[in-house]
Amino acid sequence: MSLEVVLANGSVIHTGRKTLKSVTGYDLTRLFVGSEGTLGVFTRITVKLLPLPEKIETLLVFFATTQDAVQSASQIIFNNLLPRAMEFIDKSSITCIQGYRQEMQIPAEVNALLLIDIDGKEASVKAEASLIEEIVRKNHAIRVASAKNGQERDVLWEVRRAISPALYNIAPYKINEDICVPRSRILEILDRIANIHNRYPSLKVACFGHIGDGNIHVNVMYDKGDQQKTFAERMIEEILRNTVEVGGTISGEHGIGNVKSAFLSYEIPPMELEIMKDIKRLLDPKGILNPGKMFSC
Amino acid sequence: MSLEVVLANGSVIHTGRKTLKSVTGYDLTRLFVGSEGTLGVFTRITVKLLPLPEKIETLLVFFATTQDAVQSASQIIFNNLLPRAMEFIDKSSITCIQGYRQEMQIPAEVNALLLIDIDGKEASVKAEASLIEEIVRKNHAIRVASAKNGQERDVLWEVRRAISPALYNIAPYKINEDICVPRSRILEILDRIANIHNRYPSLKVACFGHIGDGNIHVNVMYDKGDQQKTFAERMIEEILRNTVEVGGTISGEHGIGNVKSAFLSYEIPPMELEIMKDIKRLLDPKGILNPGKMFSC
Repeated sequence: MSLEVVLANGSVIHTGRKTLKSVTGYDLTRLFVGSEGTLGVFTRITVKLLPLPEKIETLLVFFATTQDAVQSASQIIFNNLLPRAMEFIDKSSITCIQGYRQEMQIPAEVNALLLIDIDGKEASVKAEASLIEEIVRKNHAIRVASAKNGQERDVLWEVRRAISPALYNIAPYKINEDICVPRSRILEILDRIANIHNRYPSLKVACFGHIGDGNIHVNVMYDKGDQQKTFAERMIEEILRNTVEVGGTISGEHGIGNVKSAFLSYEIPPMELEIMKDIKRLLDPKGILNPGKMFSC
Repeated sequence: MSLEVVLANGSVIHTGRKTLKSVTGYDLTRLFVGSEGTLGVFTRITVKLLPLPEKIETLLVFFATTQDAVQSASQIIFNNLLPRAMEFIDKSSITCIQGYRQEMQIPAEVNALLLIDIDGKEASVKAEASLIEEIVRKNHAIRVASAKNGQERDVLWEVRRAISPALYNIAPYKINEDICVPRSRILEILDRIANIHNRYPSLKVACFGHIGDGNIHVNVMYDKGDQQKTFAERMIEEILRNTVEVGGTISGEHGIGNVKSAFLSYEIPPMELEIMKDIKRLLDPKGILNPGKMFSC
């Protein structure tokens, strides 16, 4: 909602308001948010809070195919059901988890999972949960596990939480991408990633993430050998190009930083990039704020 | 979500994405939105849609005092009930409506109204409506009228819709303000406005608006005489100063344009204003886009 920002020249400004709405002047808050420290240093941030929901229910749904899982996710959204969280977990991620946590029993025929959190008033959560169950059953769900209290929910969410540490069991190095595509293009981008992966069979790839937003974490795992690293980097480059081709963005959450600055021009056209750099030069003429991050001025 | 913008130099840029999330580069979309045509001309706008709710129920609540109405609105929000709309209507507005639409019978002892729309799934709407009714009854509501279908809802909303045309029945000229305050300061700003009004008894003032957002439309009505116009302008100036004093903003929705450009500095400090003007000069060095609007460069 509002920021206190120290500018490159040392002066302190305040952006935004404590009101729910305001349309006075340019929206400096949104210009600074996501600027990755390249326009100023934030020393105070005021955020908007949402009330805690009365009730949360979690469903973990097992599918035989990726297509069934993605189709289910689309139909859930298409039916105006807007889960608090909807996480997709692919076969590689499942395999990783099982190597890492023996106690997590997931049948061999399962090739994709959806982890779904529904929140709201007690009555509506119950109604939405049964509609979602109906949709996933129609899409050939093998099994639906449901959790209604915090402890049971933790057990189901542990599957999702285990993925990141488990990945290091299959290879010591990871490049973690954060692409986001229009929700109608999720299956297409997953297919394209699988096709790209076919050309780099020595690498391991695990995809999981916030499918309800079209935001997929693509993890390319590689071994120390120099060649694998080169392959991993080439693969990432191809995945990012394909993401932009289907109307997506190279970063849904993580930002650009150093790692993705070379790829920013895949997505942002030259003129738009020039405006961003002009704003950077305007607010930081000497280039002292997070130099080299996002783009070099 | 995204914009096509023609810049001052004639070039066309595209901002934003069709994805639900993206954090690549600076948020140019939000910089342009609300810039009132001073940074570029929008030729294409992509907006995000929300699904239509399954059910909408409307309540029109009659109160003997403004305090009861404002207190009810606060408690509704405090209890995590987030109505689709919550409109406050003051005594002057009620008087106007009754002069304009004889058929709208509102008892003389009613000094404030709340018009509340609740939306969502059928089951949760029903539960929320009865919780809201409980809250307003505790706050001495005189009467609660409820509407469950579109036709009945239209009848209740006609009260709100009648206000703007009805205002011209009490005086031929109107200055319509659009202040927004933190929700905890609504009663205070209404009190301050009443006190200011006491010093300009020849003017008529009607306050109504989106109380759930803290956004109040203050309408100062005046006659042709030059003195009334001067009084009205002075009153507006005092109201805007008081709004900023209680942590509010001089415009919640309408923007600055020509009419409020003289007051922008009440709210935006000099350094922040300078950054905005620098951005304006950067994107429109010759000042050809909506010249004089918001601020003169």
